[in-house]
Amino acid sequence: MEYRRPQFYRVMAAARSADRDVVDCARGSPDWGPPEGVRDGLRSMAAADPNAYEYPPAAGLDRLRRAIADRRGVDPERVLVTNGAGAANHVAMATALAERGSEIVAADPVYPYYAGRASLLGNRARLVPVDDEGRLDPDAVRAAASTDTAAVVITTPNNPTGQTLSADAIDELAAIAAHFDAILISDEVYDHFVFAGRHQSALDADAPAVVTNSFSKTLAVPGLRVGYLVAPADLIDDIESRHLLTNVATTRPGQRAVARALETTRPDWYATNRRRVQDRIATFTAGLDAIGAEYYQPDGGFYVFARLPGVGGSFDAVFEMIESGGVAAMPGAAFGDARSEWLRFSMLTPRIETAVDRLTEYVATVEN
Amino acid sequence: MEYRRPQFYRVMAAARSADRDVVDCARGSPDWGPPEGVRDGLRSMAAADPNAYEYPPAAGLDRLRRAIADRRGVDPERVLVTNGAGAANHVAMATALAERGSEIVAADPVYPYYAGRASLLGNRARLVPVDDEGRLDPDAVRAAASTDTAAVVITTPNNPTGQTLSADAIDELAAIAAHFDAILISDEVYDHFVFAGRHQSALDADAPAVVTNSFSKTLAVPGLRVGYLVAPADLIDDIESRHLLTNVATTRPGQRAVARALETTRPDWYATNRRRVQDRIATFTAGLDAIGAEYYQPDGGFYVFARLPGVGGSFDAVFEMIESGGVAAMPGAAFGDARSEWLRFSMLTPRIETAVDRLTEYVATVEN
Repeated sequence: MEYRRPQFYRVMAAARSADRDVVDCARGSPDWGPPEGVRDGLRSMAAADPNAYEYPPAAGLDRLRRAIADRRGVDPERVLVTNGAGAANHVAMATALAERGSEIVAADPVYPYYAGRASLLGNRARLVPVDDEGRLDPDAVRAAASTDTAAVVITTPNNPTGQTLSADAIDELAAIAAHFDAILISDEVYDHFVFAGRHQSALDADAPAVVTNSFSKTLAVPGLRVGYLVAPADLIDDIESRHLLTNVATTRPGQRAVARALETTRPDWYATNRRRVQDRIATFTAGLDAIGAEYYQPDGGFYVFARLPGVGGSFDAVFEMIESGGVAAMPGAAFGDARSEWLRFSMLTPRIETAVDRLTEYVATVEN
Repeated sequence: MEYRRPQFYRVMAAARSADRDVVDCARGSPDWGPPEGVRDGLRSMAAADPNAYEYPPAAGLDRLRRAIADRRGVDPERVLVTNGAGAANHVAMATALAERGSEIVAADPVYPYYAGRASLLGNRARLVPVDDEGRLDPDAVRAAASTDTAAVVITTPNNPTGQTLSADAIDELAAIAAHFDAILISDEVYDHFVFAGRHQSALDADAPAVVTNSFSKTLAVPGLRVGYLVAPADLIDDIESRHLLTNVATTRPGQRAVARALETTRPDWYATNRRRVQDRIATFTAGLDAIGAEYYQPDGGFYVFARLPGVGGSFDAVFEMIESGGVAAMPGAAFGDARSEWLRFSMLTPRIETAVDRLTEYVATVEN
């Protein structure tokens, strides 16, 4: 097998098995738990008639598709509910790679499931290093794209860099994809965690895009495995056929819980969690400044991507930091070659101050 | 796109939109509803801590994997929990087709998702007509198999024929697959609905097999989307990597509900539902005898596969039977070419007597 299996679990396992207390800045699951609507939806499923346990419609429960369509301002026929954004990205990428070329183009550093999936499907990922500010430069994508390009895959807000793409940049990327008859796939799972201005979605681009998303971050429920994609009208049938032959349909209790939560959760719930992440980022980056670490100021998302003096970004460096420093992070090397000396710290723990204290001490130790 | 999208939904839509009352012998969802343990499991999920909403382990909740492993008599490490048997079959077939050849061999008639999936993945399905008794003959599989064969896919008890494979036949099929370095994939989702003797699983075959299964039929919960596969120890890692890059993980509420149900559901619940299906089959086949229809006496499963005098097995024949006869069934043509004049009647409605009365009248009408 040539493909790279994502290695996140190795860090999780090291953090769990450490002999000492470890602050978990490696995790991707929100720590604040779901809104009450999620629990209400599960309770209503528990009490439902037998027909609520039948096969769901392949494209998703009508009620949920309509709620998503309303929020995104699209026709419900363009919405497909999937087993998380993972399955949304899978069927979108597999559809592109089956018909349009043998390569995907993405940023480096990159969420490793994209490149792993291209390799899994017998294809390649061409990774374009981000610029000095951690941003994906459309000109660099243009230079890397070719008639072999099946899809240009972007993440905005980004994991791991925390950067967002401007409307102009997204327009340019959509035009580049269209020029090569490729699909722009825009993973927007952090869209509720944009810290300044509003989220710029590829749905608003001048050229068509497949936008993938999930409720894992938005509603703090990665365990439900409910995501979705919005595709152009001329692509949705092909993508839905692939979804049908991959997963048949998406779980009903999860869909019902999400639908209820979308109907009942008030705006301040979302705002509170966004501010929670922002406050943690402020605390953490103040600590990084004091340490003298390099980092990208996040525009959005859950992460601070940083380079600590003397620490490094390999798996071994992370294992050492867990054991000797008491803080777990994800190695930059897990996201590609361009920032392999960096680390991704997630802001999904209330113990950010402890993390800063420990990192300050750890950096002082390794530098001596 | 060359692949065939399963067309079941066309019959469902015709039955729903008919101007008259229609007895639904087309559906695949049990009508009796889940055991109380499923509902208990969902209620416990609704009340659970935030960490119960985090990403589940990729291979499935430990509690559920252990329960499955105990029942199947295998090491839990060989068990992968999937988004229904659909995803189990998908990752097993995709793993085989990525490395071992470009064809699957399966019976005709065949559950259409297998052949559609092979085509979707850029490969072919070589279908072997069943014998006059509706059984897959291992000698015919041997004649069809070659070094191009990546997987031999069987279903026992079968959908649509209702036939089971003997231990000897499964041994022969496993040996044929092994001879060509192919994987025997045995879909056993109807294993709790075997009407005489015990279920013969490919797990007990002399050569290795990947066994796929789900709780959709067993616990009457296709809407949960919880299935699994058991793979040989030297294959499970490759299959799990593919699962990870396809779906990341399987939904927690569904897994929790199934785990609870497996722990709390008494044997008589399963036996009652098996007898319910048997009684319906007895009523239905007595009616078919009186009509003079040809059919296979089911060894197991949910279906009676039959040929009605003068009716035919095309989609058009089914649409006509819905409108003029008031009974919906699945067209034999949806399952391949070998029995394209036949129909699959599911026994998942309490209105079997009404179905028999209407079919008796309908056959009399079309014969005149």
